[in-house]
Formats: sequence, structure tokens, C-alpha cells
Amino acid sequence: MAVYTEVDDEALADFLLRYDIGEAIAFKGIAEGVENSNYLLETTKARFILTLYEKRVNADDLPFFMGVMEALADAGFPAPLPVKARDGSALQELNDRPAAIVTFLNGMSPRKPNASQCQQIGTAMARMHNALASTTLSRPNDLSVDAWPDLFEGREATAATLAPNLATLIAGDLDRLLDQWPDPEDLPQGIIHADLFPDNAFFLGENFSGVIDFYFACTDMLAYDIAIALNAWCFEARGEFNMTKGRALLAGYTSVRDFTDAEVKALPALIHGAAMRFFLTRLVDWTDTPADALVRPKDPTEYAEKLGFHRMARKLEDYGYMPASS
Amino acid sequence: MAVYTEVDDEALADFLLRYDIGEAIAFKGIAEGVENSNYLLETTKARFILTLYEKRVNADDLPFFMGVMEALADAGFPAPLPVKARDGSALQELNDRPAAIVTFLNGMSPRKPNASQCQQIGTAMARMHNALASTTLSRPNDLSVDAWPDLFEGREATAATLAPNLATLIAGDLDRLLDQWPDPEDLPQGIIHADLFPDNAFFLGENFSGVIDFYFACTDMLAYDIAIALNAWCFEARGEFNMTKGRALLAGYTSVRDFTDAEVKALPALIHGAAMRFFLTRLVDWTDTPADALVRPKDPTEYAEKLGFHRMARKLEDYGYMPASS
Repeated sequence: MAVYTEVDDEALADFLLRYDIGEAIAFKGIAEGVENSNYLLETTKARFILTLYEKRVNADDLPFFMGVMEALADAGFPAPLPVKARDGSALQELNDRPAAIVTFLNGMSPRKPNASQCQQIGTAMARMHNALASTTLSRPNDLSVDAWPDLFEGREATAATLAPNLATLIAGDLDRLLDQWPDPEDLPQGIIHADLFPDNAFFLGENFSGVIDFYFACTDMLAYDIAIALNAWCFEARGEFNMTKGRALLAGYTSVRDFTDAEVKALPALIHGAAMRFFLTRLVDWTDTPADALVRPKDPTEYAEKLGFHRMARKLEDYGYMPASS
Repeated sequence: MAVYTEVDDEALADFLLRYDIGEAIAFKGIAEGVENSNYLLETTKARFILTLYEKRVNADDLPFFMGVMEALADAGFPAPLPVKARDGSALQELNDRPAAIVTFLNGMSPRKPNASQCQQIGTAMARMHNALASTTLSRPNDLSVDAWPDLFEGREATAATLAPNLATLIAGDLDRLLDQWPDPEDLPQGIIHADLFPDNAFFLGENFSGVIDFYFACTDMLAYDIAIALNAWCFEARGEFNMTKGRALLAGYTSVRDFTDAEVKALPALIHGAAMRFFLTRLVDWTDTPADALVRPKDPTEYAEKLGFHRMARKLEDYGYMPASS
């Protein structure tokens, strides 16, 4: 949950004068997103989410994130649309923080996605990649393979508290990943969500209804987005991979866009790497979050367990992939 | 902010089958109330608040709280109305906790109430007292004068860390309050809200629109509710009493229901006592809340400063009261 910055009724009323979206009739801090302060805002005209961007978001990246959401809306992909103020800009300032209002998206996040939802999110991700294919926006992925050794350095002892031999295993993983990591130029690249976990996807009943939280979006290999989603959607407890869900997610994606041969070859390393990225950032948060913080850090163990599966996998078929020719 | 208990999409869908309020189309944990977990729930039919009652609420009291809200709705007073499930009961269970769905109230809480809002909340409180006058519900106020010495005992040292002589002053206040406290039988009694702070009151634009959070409601002297509200609505920073706001709140209340002579006489002690009640419960939370708790305790200093004002006041006119004859 996250409401770091309080916004009072008078500050809100003043802020809304900058927009043409009516007057507030309800305003509630919501427990969504861990990086920023989020409010549900209902006005006399419609419902919105007001976000105040806190320290962990680089303000220089915000125009990129706004541009990604605008591009998706232009292409008809269901994502929040930033609302422009009267001055023409969606990026404003409130309580000394960058702030933006985006449209409200109906839907609920699945806690335990089923195979149908995995298939639908695969399809949605391919549609999202296509929708962003023609934008000229770009932002480097600063949490990719090059960043990982530094994230791990000095945290070997913390890793060892999670499992006795974990520090050694991670060091081995890192060597292998640096060695196996594909040259991005060899794979289709574009804008990826890079954090498409179930809590960033909405469904209405059984049907996909939208994607939120584009604040890790960046330019990278499209297949890396799939790698992140396979980790986030297709595992059960204790690092057990659900092959049916993996198959569904991959089939959903390839029903819209087929993988290139280079992608099929590279994906096992990308999937392994995606687990490493979330293991390491959780390990950092686990080490660095003060005990009295408002947000409890997520236990890195979940991703340590997933790494255990990836260490044994060798080809994309091990994740449920069925080549079109089969 | 408070979302202590997670409710996943499947548990919610199952839960809603017990009601005739449609299917969920949005569901967000909200930062409202510190005692319970609250969710904004939008269904295909309307918007609601789903509350899961956590440990600090005594489950035996819940039927009383539901009854109070129902009585208010019956009388046309704007408060959340508990929604009955198909089994006829508004009280259900979800994730091993008592749970209830209430109707959604539009409006926003003022952070710094102005004199007009103080006047309106005084009027609203009198209307609320009238609306509850004919119910037979009752619940003792277990946070009144008899409970205070025990709350203070053992916390003198903590009080002394807030201000050097505070422990002595509080001990003196307690003696004086026990001595001056009126016999409840001598004053009009009924059901009071007992926690009508600005964040439990809603306004739409400048106009009062409703009251929420009845989870401290109890049977007590009606004037004690006024005493709590005067403390909560009419002070500026550093314990400075705003006489204009006090006058407005009292005038608002008496425009609907005149005080009896006994109430006018007793109110200075009740106002002093109301500040003591919130000072002491905040002092307890301040002492007892673990550093890693999700909710940061409120600083008791605010109420220590208000107690400083009350120590000097002698009559209700010191709070802005203007007798009808003047």
C-alpha cells in the first residue's frame, strides 16, 4: 500500500482548477503501486487516478511514461490515459512532487491467475508490443543484465541467510547469464512493460480489461517482457512451474506475433535473467528497507525458488512452448 | 492508511454471491480508518465500501454499530447504510473476519475546517443526535472518565518525554476531571458518534454531505459529543483555540437543539475531558505501537497542547458560547 504524500481538500480543489474535468466529489488514497502515492479521484464528470511521483521515480523519465500511455490509448489498447491540463501538459506539480491524472480503468487483478488469464495476458502483451511498435520514444532498461553484478555485490551474506548455498548459486547464475545473454540487436526490440505482474493487469469477470503501472517501461528485447511475465504468472508456490499456464501464455502471445528463431533460442536465458532481476531488486529492498517503513519489502525467496527451476531448464519447450510446426 | 487483510478476486467473487448487489468491476484497498481494512468496491449496480473488522474492534459491538447506521438511514441522516446479504444480515464473515458492505458516500473531508464547516458540523451533530433519539440500542462508553487513570498509569515517563512537567499536569487534570465530571443522569443522554473528527465528515464543495466511521459510537451524554468535536474542529496549530470556529460549531448545534442549563455548566469539564481521552489513547498508542507497524501512531503532543488551553478555561463562553438570551 502506498500513500506517502497527503493531499488535502483545498490543495486538490486548487489543483483541479488546472484541468477541465469538473470538481471533486470523492477522493481516497488507495493501496496500489509501491513507488508512488495514488488517489482515486471522482469528479462531477468521471473517475480518475491521481498519482504523485515519489523519490524512486526519476522525474526525467515521466514524459516517456506519459508518452507510452498516450501511444497505447491512440492504438486502442486498454491502459490509463494521462489527462492533459489546460496548459496542454499531462505532467503537473502538486505538493512539490510531479503529479498526473490518468483515466480510471475498471477491472480487478487476479491473485492466482488461471490458464485462461495467462493465455489472455500473453495475447494482450503481444497487442501491447504491436501498439507501441511505431513510437519513437525510448528509455534504456537500467535494471538489465549489466546492472545485476552491482546489485548483488555486498549482499552475498543476506542471500546466505535465505538458503545456505544461495550466494554461490547466484554467483554461478550471474556468470552463466552474462555468458548466455543475447545481443539485443539480434532480437526484435521495442517498448516493453517490464513489470507486467498480475497486480498490474485487470480482468472483468474472466475477460482481460487492461494494463496499468507503466513506470518500469523501457526499450528492450520484446521477448524479455514475455520472460518477466512467465515468471510472474506461471509459477505455483515453492517455485513449481505450471506448464499448462506457461503453454497458455506463450500460445497467447504467439497467436498475435510469432517468435523469431533467435527469440526461441534466447528465451530460456531471458526467463532465467528475468527471475534474477526480481530476485536481486527484492534482495536489495530486503536489505535496505528500514524496519519502520510504510511498505514491507517482498521476500526474495519466491524468486530464489524460481531461479532453481530455471537452472535446470534448457530450451523454451521446457516452459511449454509448442513450435507452430508441431 | 489501513489494509491489514488482503482479499483476493476469487474470495471477493464468492463473497458477493451472498448479496444481490451485482458483480465487482473495481476493487481497491483504501487508506481510510485506522482500525479496520477498507476497500472501495464498485459493482455492476453501485459503489460500496467493504470493511473487514480487525482485532481492535470487538465483534460483539458490531450489531450495535450496524443498528446505529441503519437508524440514521431510516431517519434520513446521511451516513453509510449497511447492505443486507440474502440471509437478511448485514454482518457477514470474510477471510475469518467479521465483514460488512455499506453504501458509498460522496464527499471529501476537510483538512483545515473553516468556520462555515464548523457551523455545519454542529448542526449535523444535533440532527444526528435527534435521528438516534428513538432507538433502543445502547453501548457503554468504555473510554470515558473512569477508564482514564488506568490508561495513564505506567505511562508517566512517556508523558515526561513530551514536555518536562507534563506528567504532573496530567495527574492534576485527572484529579480535577474526576471531581468535576457531571452525573450523566443530570444531562441529556443518547447515542453519540464519539469520534467525529474532520476526517469522518464529508463535504461536497462547501456543503456538509455526510458522516462516516461509527465504530466508537456509544451511549453517553450528548454534550460529550460536542466536547469531542470542539477539540477536533476548532483548534489551530500549537493548541490555539479559534473562538470564531468554536462559536460557529456551538451555534450550529444549538440552532437545532438548545443546551440545558446543566449542559452549559458541565460542558467546560466535558471539553477538558474529551481532550484528556484523546491525549491518553494517543499516549497509549505512542507507547505501544511497534516501530514496524503499518500505521504510524499520532503524536499525543497535539492534545497535550489543547489540554493547556482547557486548564485555563472556566465557562462555556470561553469557547465562544453565546446564550440565546444575549
